[in-house]
Amino acid sequence: MQTIINERIAQLRLLLEEYTLGGWIINGTDAHQSEYVAPRWGSRAWISGFTGSAGSVLITATEALLWVDSRYFLQAEEQIAGTEFVLMKIDTPGYPDMNSYIKENITECRWVGIAAETLTISGKATIEAALGKAVELVPIDDLLDTIWTDRPPVPSSKVIQVPDDLAGFSASQKLTMIRAALSQHGADWTIISSLDDIAWLTNLRGDDVPYNPVFYSYALVGREAAWLFTDPGRFSAETAAQLASSFTIKGYEELSAVLNEVIKADDRIYLNPERTSVQVAEAMESNRYVTGRDFTADLKASKNETELEGMRRAHLLDGVALVNFLAKLDTRGGRYTEIEIAGLLAHERERSPEYLGPSFGPISGWAEHGALPHYSATEESNATVRGDGLLVLDTGGHYLSGMTDVTRTILFGEPTEEQQIDYTLVLKGNLALARARFPEGTCGYQLDVLARQFLWQEGRTYHHGTGHGIGFRLNVHEGPQSISPKPLVVPLKKGMVISDEPGLYRAGKHGIRIENVVAVQEDGTGEFGTFLSFEVLTICPFERTLIMKELLSEAEVAMVDAYHRWVSEELKELVDEAALPYLEAATSPL
Amino acid sequence: MQTIINERIAQLRLLLEEYTLGGWIINGTDAHQSEYVAPRWGSRAWISGFTGSAGSVLITATEALLWVDSRYFLQAEEQIAGTEFVLMKIDTPGYPDMNSYIKENITECRWVGIAAETLTISGKATIEAALGKAVELVPIDDLLDTIWTDRPPVPSSKVIQVPDDLAGFSASQKLTMIRAALSQHGADWTIISSLDDIAWLTNLRGDDVPYNPVFYSYALVGREAAWLFTDPGRFSAETAAQLASSFTIKGYEELSAVLNEVIKADDRIYLNPERTSVQVAEAMESNRYVTGRDFTADLKASKNETELEGMRRAHLLDGVALVNFLAKLDTRGGRYTEIEIAGLLAHERERSPEYLGPSFGPISGWAEHGALPHYSATEESNATVRGDGLLVLDTGGHYLSGMTDVTRTILFGEPTEEQQIDYTLVLKGNLALARARFPEGTCGYQLDVLARQFLWQEGRTYHHGTGHGIGFRLNVHEGPQSISPKPLVVPLKKGMVISDEPGLYRAGKHGIRIENVVAVQEDGTGEFGTFLSFEVLTICPFERTLIMKELLSEAEVAMVDAYHRWVSEELKELVDEAALPYLEAATSPL
Repeated sequence: MQTIINERIAQLRLLLEEYTLGGWIINGTDAHQSEYVAPRWGSRAWISGFTGSAGSVLITATEALLWVDSRYFLQAEEQIAGTEFVLMKIDTPGYPDMNSYIKENITECRWVGIAAETLTISGKATIEAALGKAVELVPIDDLLDTIWTDRPPVPSSKVIQVPDDLAGFSASQKLTMIRAALSQHGADWTIISSLDDIAWLTNLRGDDVPYNPVFYSYALVGREAAWLFTDPGRFSAETAAQLASSFTIKGYEELSAVLNEVIKADDRIYLNPERTSVQVAEAMESNRYVTGRDFTADLKASKNETELEGMRRAHLLDGVALVNFLAKLDTRGGRYTEIEIAGLLAHERERSPEYLGPSFGPISGWAEHGALPHYSATEESNATVRGDGLLVLDTGGHYLSGMTDVTRTILFGEPTEEQQIDYTLVLKGNLALARARFPEGTCGYQLDVLARQFLWQEGRTYHHGTGHGIGFRLNVHEGPQSISPKPLVVPLKKGMVISDEPGLYRAGKHGIRIENVVAVQEDGTGEFGTFLSFEVLTICPFERTLIMKELLSEAEVAMVDAYHRWVSEELKELVDEAALPYLEAATSPL
Repeated sequence: MQTIINERIAQLRLLLEEYTLGGWIINGTDAHQSEYVAPRWGSRAWISGFTGSAGSVLITATEALLWVDSRYFLQAEEQIAGTEFVLMKIDTPGYPDMNSYIKENITECRWVGIAAETLTISGKATIEAALGKAVELVPIDDLLDTIWTDRPPVPSSKVIQVPDDLAGFSASQKLTMIRAALSQHGADWTIISSLDDIAWLTNLRGDDVPYNPVFYSYALVGREAAWLFTDPGRFSAETAAQLASSFTIKGYEELSAVLNEVIKADDRIYLNPERTSVQVAEAMESNRYVTGRDFTADLKASKNETELEGMRRAHLLDGVALVNFLAKLDTRGGRYTEIEIAGLLAHERERSPEYLGPSFGPISGWAEHGALPHYSATEESNATVRGDGLLVLDTGGHYLSGMTDVTRTILFGEPTEEQQIDYTLVLKGNLALARARFPEGTCGYQLDVLARQFLWQEGRTYHHGTGHGIGFRLNVHEGPQSISPKPLVVPLKKGMVISDEPGLYRAGKHGIRIENVVAVQEDGTGEFGTFLSFEVLTICPFERTLIMKELLSEAEVAMVDAYHRWVSEELKELVDEAALPYLEAATSPL
């Protein structure tokens, strides 16, 4: 492998020479800034052998450099060992960032290339500002296309329709909303690159990447006409016919030609510069941009009543699977592996005919593995679960009517007092956020402390956000809203669905996370305006054996009891008869 | 007056013609971006007759325009009536903002002037970005100097020293800190324009503007030398002699000449572009800036142990005055005016030999006036305080050893249930913020909701920040920290002093605000890092007759009782004997 990597570097250097470039940047994204990319865009791994989810590569005439953040220092070091690659540690003294490195070191042939399809308009501005006049950034067609002879094609999985009666609005109705927004913003066109936005707009779902049911495509919407750029061969005849009333379908690679043809020099184009590539920008005669989040981002974030009803149903089905799973799990004398346990839960989900598959890779972390918030068990790490300890189980499913994401921390054997206190403090935070009421206009960052306050009071904290937006039969991480210490100015709005997942992680010992999904609902209007609050969607008992009741206020005890009563009511007619004793015990009053 | 205003406009227009300018901007700030400006910089009021604290003027060949925000729509309308001025309502449909107006309307003579001393480096960049290439912004000497023949001079009140044993560090020690920061940031010089920063650095206090004990000046600090630019005649011989060991004193207007002389073309200058004027920038041969908050801003924000000890003493003396005042106030049958009541409290403060004067204009708002958070009683508005109702009394004092800012809501007669509930919810917020514990790195915006949560839960809220930084014998509004929904990324640090002042305002009925001053303290270090919490400095009973005890948790009752116990302990040996019965009753357990 090391030899192959070094050969690829050498081939790329020949191209640098041919194109008179002092360097080539590979940022490892796709043309849509997706969280998960299809193998075609696995260019960082192809050139370097490094398989992490983030990192930047720079190849110059003499150097091959890989910048990664601290999560990946060890993994990157191992994976590039024996190759020409040198590890550059991000945010670490002694290591310049990539732009500074370029500025200081590329002093002869002062042009640095990058694949134009992977560079956003904002990204270009940022790099150019950093480079100043020292070096010119040159976005062009991807040089790797020439040397990566077996590069996978743009994926083209079959695409299915979400029926209008599940989506709430037809694609044609959604186009009307987009056109109203265009008109409101004084724009003639909008280009959408973000794949989940296109899936929402078209009521279509694909299978081009794991977990996220998106399909590689672009959408172009004008006041009168709309195009969808994706392999036409992926539609059934029926879907193609239905779609034809709203969109003209063109091939994925025909975007540039159509942009070039239909957009006039003085047209105004609404686009998100953080999602739109310079390749797209360069295909248009006009650069009269109106910039902002994609219209679809806000429309899709606030779920309509039909979508919410579907989300409720998905959570009900998920609750059945969770309780059937928990009832069978032998936490007193059982012996499992982390992967086995995730499989057992997946198996229960699969019993529902409405289940479509996991919404993300399961996190099943036993004991000290639970203290790694983003742990993913591999065959090598796969720990044996038995005896006393905590298991963090963070999983989710796609269903016909919606999507789930749920974390429960499960006790095996006997708890320690520290585990009980930690769990109860995390639970108090989860409850405090869930019961929050707040005026319209409130942003997630304003509520974040509600979930942390009890931990903080005891000198404990966790280092991840408290909540991420959740898609409807779409991506498990969906913007624009979040609940986090990061001051993202996005007000929470009616219909937004978001996770409530405080945690606590003691390195080498145990992890705790309690995650429910909640939906923003209206909660009264009066002298001080309209207020909002959360409706809890997740239906699954908390781990009562980890709750230290004396740490809960009366109101908190009542809240847990009311939640458990509701869980029991919702599920008791639906779970296996064999699961009823567990359900009853797990949901009886504290 | 209307005629005079129109004459001034006409005179300015003659100058526009002479200087070939299409317009002249007056932003109404001084050369230091002070919150309160000396009369010399009252240029907005001089040209327009509008006396509000914020607004922008644009004079063109044909138009005279005044932009104000919604607080001032009515006042501005009245004050400019009968003049050529046209009111432009900020953030109101139908009214372009000033930059847009200029861009669209100044199409012939496309240069717009502004007094260079009132325009910051950042302000210039912002306006220029908005104007694009349409119109050029021309910062020059203030044209008003020519026509404002009786323009007041730069003030030159006597300056006094804060003794080193009250300041904690001598000016020379503070210079050493600045030089360490210069070195750390790789800069050769720093220019300080912010007046309270200079007062802090030099341990000097003036009386150039009301309430804020600052003196008009600039400071220039290099690796070896330092200058203070202010009227040398304002120092006593002793102060001048002491100062001479650290600073070279030059006249206020000599800054440009010295900058021009000492700063070399490749020197690096650390400055705050939001506080430094383009006049200053243009006086230097180098524009190799290192930008950021003034070093002094962060150093001054975190009070040292001596300053904190002084702040505690100031709050003790203030508590004595408050309790003596409250004991004498007849809230059952008395009859006062709002101004009288503020005077009575001021009188009690004046009994302390260490009292120097008010730290801001008192807010004494009876009944519906209390619902105006920034109400200031005038002879016309001065309401009679008698019968049943609430008085919001927000005042503060400068003392030799520190400064106070305290708000109490005082019940006259009998409360309504609504008043009691409102008060108790505000109190719960005040207590929740005061008892917060949080990890190092936490910013004020993360804590803000703690003070709002109980109001929100009941569908109520308030529309101002929860806390502002407080100076040590300096400005009552001091940056950089705050506690507010606005996401200002400034971590709270040990020694920072900040207000805790949630409120509730029912238009036409009553206002409630409860303000204590708190200081950030260290509160333990463990597995999850170092935690901080607040020490309450304000020593004054809450209004127990407004507390609805059944709305408080046991922990809150205990917290109020503990606070009152402490207030009683601190004050009982110091207040008038006649005040003891009040103190005892006001601080007895709930």
